Formats: sequence, structure tokens, C-alpha cells
Amino acid sequence: MNAVRTRQDFPLWLQDRVQHIEEVLNNVLPADDTVPPVLHQAMRYAVLGGGKRIRAALVYAAGEASFQGGVSVSAQELALDYAAAAVELLHAYSLVHDDLPCMDDDNLRRGRPTVHVQYNEAIAMLVGDALQPLAFDILSQMPVAPALVVQATQLLARAVGSQGMVGGQAIDCDSVGNRLSSEQLQQMHRMKTGALLEASVLLGGIVAGASSATREGLERYASAIGLAFQVVDDILDVTSDTATLGKTAGKDAASDKPTYVSILGMDASRELLGSLATEARDAVRPMGDAAAALAGVIDYIVSRDR
Amino acid sequence: MNAVRTRQDFPLWLQDRVQHIEEVLNNVLPADDTVPPVLHQAMRYAVLGGGKRIRAALVYAAGEASFQGGVSVSAQELALDYAAAAVELLHAYSLVHDDLPCMDDDNLRRGRPTVHVQYNEAIAMLVGDALQPLAFDILSQMPVAPALVVQATQLLARAVGSQGMVGGQAIDCDSVGNRLSSEQLQQMHRMKTGALLEASVLLGGIVAGASSATREGLERYASAIGLAFQVVDDILDVTSDTATLGKTAGKDAASDKPTYVSILGMDASRELLGSLATEARDAVRPMGDAAAALAGVIDYIVSRDR
Repeated sequence: MNAVRTRQDFPLWLQDRVQHIEEVLNNVLPADDTVPPVLHQAMRYAVLGGGKRIRAALVYAAGEASFQGGVSVSAQELALDYAAAAVELLHAYSLVHDDLPCMDDDNLRRGRPTVHVQYNEAIAMLVGDALQPLAFDILSQMPVAPALVVQATQLLARAVGSQGMVGGQAIDCDSVGNRLSSEQLQQMHRMKTGALLEASVLLGGIVAGASSATREGLERYASAIGLAFQVVDDILDVTSDTATLGKTAGKDAASDKPTYVSILGMDASRELLGSLATEARDAVRPMGDAAAALAGVIDYIVSRDR
Repeated sequence: MNAVRTRQDFPLWLQDRVQHIEEVLNNVLPADDTVPPVLHQAMRYAVLGGGKRIRAALVYAAGEASFQGGVSVSAQELALDYAAAAVELLHAYSLVHDDLPCMDDDNLRRGRPTVHVQYNEAIAMLVGDALQPLAFDILSQMPVAPALVVQATQLLARAVGSQGMVGGQAIDCDSVGNRLSSEQLQQMHRMKTGALLEASVLLGGIVAGASSATREGLERYASAIGLAFQVVDDILDVTSDTATLGKTAGKDAASDKPTYVSILGMDASRELLGSLATEARDAVRPMGDAAAALAGVIDYIVSRDR
């Protein structure tokens, strides 16, 4: 893995990481001719061939910022690959279940039919149900000290649990048609989207053996990035179109879902985004050049159009 | 925990273990007034207040058969509690998802309305999605050597993954209306029901530090028990009634699902059950008195009426 040295290096670094994690995911997913073939084909359809891979990028960027000497570089890189794959598998499972008719009932994802449209509802549910333990299986194979594997497992399990991602989803379901306060909205997003994004950053730090000072910086960075990501999502739902997004635009507004834009308005949402980006930059500044990729991710998140 | 000394002790031992795991589950599940309350209430509804707890009993029984000296008994008992809770949480999640309309579409479970009937489909899906990482979270808290935690995590993740429980479910969905061969049926059940039952036995052995000879015996026992459980399930679907089962009787036959009874016939199914029980008893005989609870579970499974 080539480290990011300057802000200009970042796009190439990201492109490289996106290609690389695609290969890793391709390798960790069961082959599509193994029993049961339909399930494995659908799992591969759900995970491969698309996605921004922002969570994987966060794992790698946090890993770069945290590397300590004294450990085999190849073992650490493999461990980061597995950690990045685990968060992408968990993210993919959450999308498959969110798209189901009993949830968001969406037909389009990453510009393609959603899993339950391409296959059926039962398979879509089982795809999500199987991607989740695959993530923990992959994580358990990381070639780092077992105590770090246990830490990583616990972190990730909590990030996607009832007080993390799935809990945020439950609040979101409950909130349709209700007007949430700005604080309630923030809590919902911290759980639904923020928890896994934050866990991705911390996971990179754990795997690469971050010092406690670096871990603290990563936590502040992760918290700001997690929210910023959702603010951008809400802005794009209003300002972008379906072709660019690769998923249905205007969906949240149409279904009367509370968003940053609907609660704070567009101007205040953009202001909030600016201060979250500043907060994230400040958090990683003490890490110096090693944090160049983390800084690059901030710019990328703020300026993304899908 | 009082060990089983004779076959007569077993019913009391089981009653004690069932009560105990109910308390453990009550403690590890999030309180129903914590955010998000509806999800947490539904998770508690899905897990508590019923169930045979056969998987938890297998964890404890295998633990008893495997205890080695030199480790704190209270730490080992706590670890077995967490392991038993993890398998019960995973089993409960699988039932909630299996009962959904896009799967078996069942309204009754353990004599009560299923989760999607009591709440709604979205909550039922999220309950399953949240119970699964809770299981891995609890497992990560076992007070045993981190390397054993990692082993246990990997074992359990594979047992419920696409080549275990969820994979068996996918084959089952695919098989409705098709006539499976006896070998295909066996493979489906080994994955769908057998994998988690087997993992429960092996988990107890891992946590209690079983010797490699004991582990081998546990593997043979687990394999036989896993199949025997399903054969009994299929027999009961035909011979029992809904009130006794606490779930809809005759469902498999009505929906033209392949079962041991439909493929082998009742007599051959009972014969198969007898030889699996013998196989399981032979496997644990070398463990002597320590395996009394494991032997008790065999009798219990063979003679259960729900």
C-alpha cells in the first residue's frame, strides 16, 4: 500500500484502495458454485461491483495514521484488509435489508435492481443474515494478537447492534411522519450511519496498534466524519438526481422522513457540514503526514456527489 | 452448578439450567426502557419466556464433560453462561426471521404470537438483525484466554453463516415442492438445524478447555445429536398437535416440505433415531461420569414431545 504524502495523492490512493478492497471481498465471499449456489450468488451480487467503499477507505486511512513499528507489515496489511472487508460486508447487509419492502421498499441500489428485486424477498433476507456472520468470521482470521481481534469484534458487534446501526434504523422506522427534534435526529443518525463509520476508523487504529493519543484523535475524527457523512446524504437527497445517486433521489422528502435539510434548512445544514469538517481536520492534525489519507477522506466526503 | 451424577439427576439439572439461562438472558438483553425502547422490548419478547433451551443445555453439558483443573471455576462458569446465551440469542434470531411472511409465514411460536404479529415486520427483521451481533458481543466478553474467544467466535460465525444455518434455510426455501433425496435432506438439516446444535456442544468444550480426546468425542456426539433433533422434529410435526407443540403442527406436510418422515417413512425415521442415539452415547462413554448430562440430553431429545 502506498501512503498518501500530499493532498494531491489522495484520489489515486482512493482509487487503489477501492480496487484493492474489491479484490479482497471477491476472495472472502464464498464462490458462487458452492452450496448453496443461489445464496452465494446473491451474496456476491449484493457486495461486489459497486459502492463507494468509504468505510473500507476509513479503515485503511486510520491504519496508515496508526502504524507502529515492530510488527510485520504484511501481517498488518492483511489484518487491515480483513477489517475493511468486515465493515463493507456489514454495510452491504444493512443495505440489502433496508431496501426490503417491509423497510424502505427500494428497487434501485448502486444503479442496479436491489437484491429482493433481482432474486426474491426470502433470499434478500438470508443474504443479509449470512453476510453478518461472514463479517465476524473474516475478522476472527486477522493475523494480529487475539486480544486485538476480541477488541475489534466487540467494537464492530456494538456498532451494528441495537444501540448502533440497527437501533438507528428502528428509530428511523418509528419516526416516519413524526417531526424529530434536531437532537433526536442527530442521535438517530449517530446510530444508524455514524456508528459503523466511526467503528471503521477505530478498527483501523486497533488493528494497526495505534497509540492511545492517536486513538483519541481517531475518536474525535470518527465522530465528526460520521455526522458529516449523513448531512451530505441529506443534502444530496434534495440536490441530486436518481441517475447520479444510483438510488432513488428525493425519497426521504417524499416519504416525509426527517432529515437535516428538512429540520435545519439547507443553509444551516451546509454550515454544520463546514464545522464538522473543521473539527475532523483539527482532530488528526497532531498525527502529521501520516494522517494525509484521513484528511483526504474529509474532502472527499464533503465534496461527493453520490 | 451441580453436576449430574446419575441418569435420575438429569431432569432437575435441566430444570436448573433452563431457569439459570433465562436469568442470564434477562441480564444480557438491553433493558426495555433504553433507546430504542420498542426494539429492545421486541428483542426481549423474542428471546425470553419460553423455549426448550436445548442449545444452552448442550453448552453446559459439554462444559461439565470438559472441565480441566487449574482455571477459576467461577470464571469458567461465567464463560459458559455467555456462550450459552450467545447460542440462544442466535437461535431466537433465526426463529424470528423464519417466522416472517417472506419465509415460513407463521403466526404462532412457543404458544404466543410471533414477533411480526405482535409488533410488525420491520421490527421483527430488526430484532433478528440486532440479536445476531449481540450474540457476538456477549461472546467477546467471556473471561477466558482471548485465543479461545477468537476460536469460539469463528466457530459460531460459521455455524450460523451461509455454509451453516442460513445456508440450510436457503436450501429449505428452494426445496419447497421439490423432492429431495435422502442425502440432500440430510445435508440441508445438517446445515439448518445441526450446525448450531453441534456448535453449542463444541463451544462448551472450547470454553471449558476440553482435551483433544474429549473434543473428538464431543464432535461425534454433536454430529449425531444434531441429526437426531431434526428427525424428532419431523416425527412430531406428524404425530403431535398444535397445542402441545406451541407452533403449528402438520405445517411441513401441508406445505409439501420434504421431511425425514415424508422421505423415509415413519418406521425408518424411528429406526434412524435409535441408531443416532446409540452413536451419541458411544461417543461420550469414554468421558465417564462427567458426561452424565450429555447422556441425559440424548434421552431428553429422543423422548421430547414438543
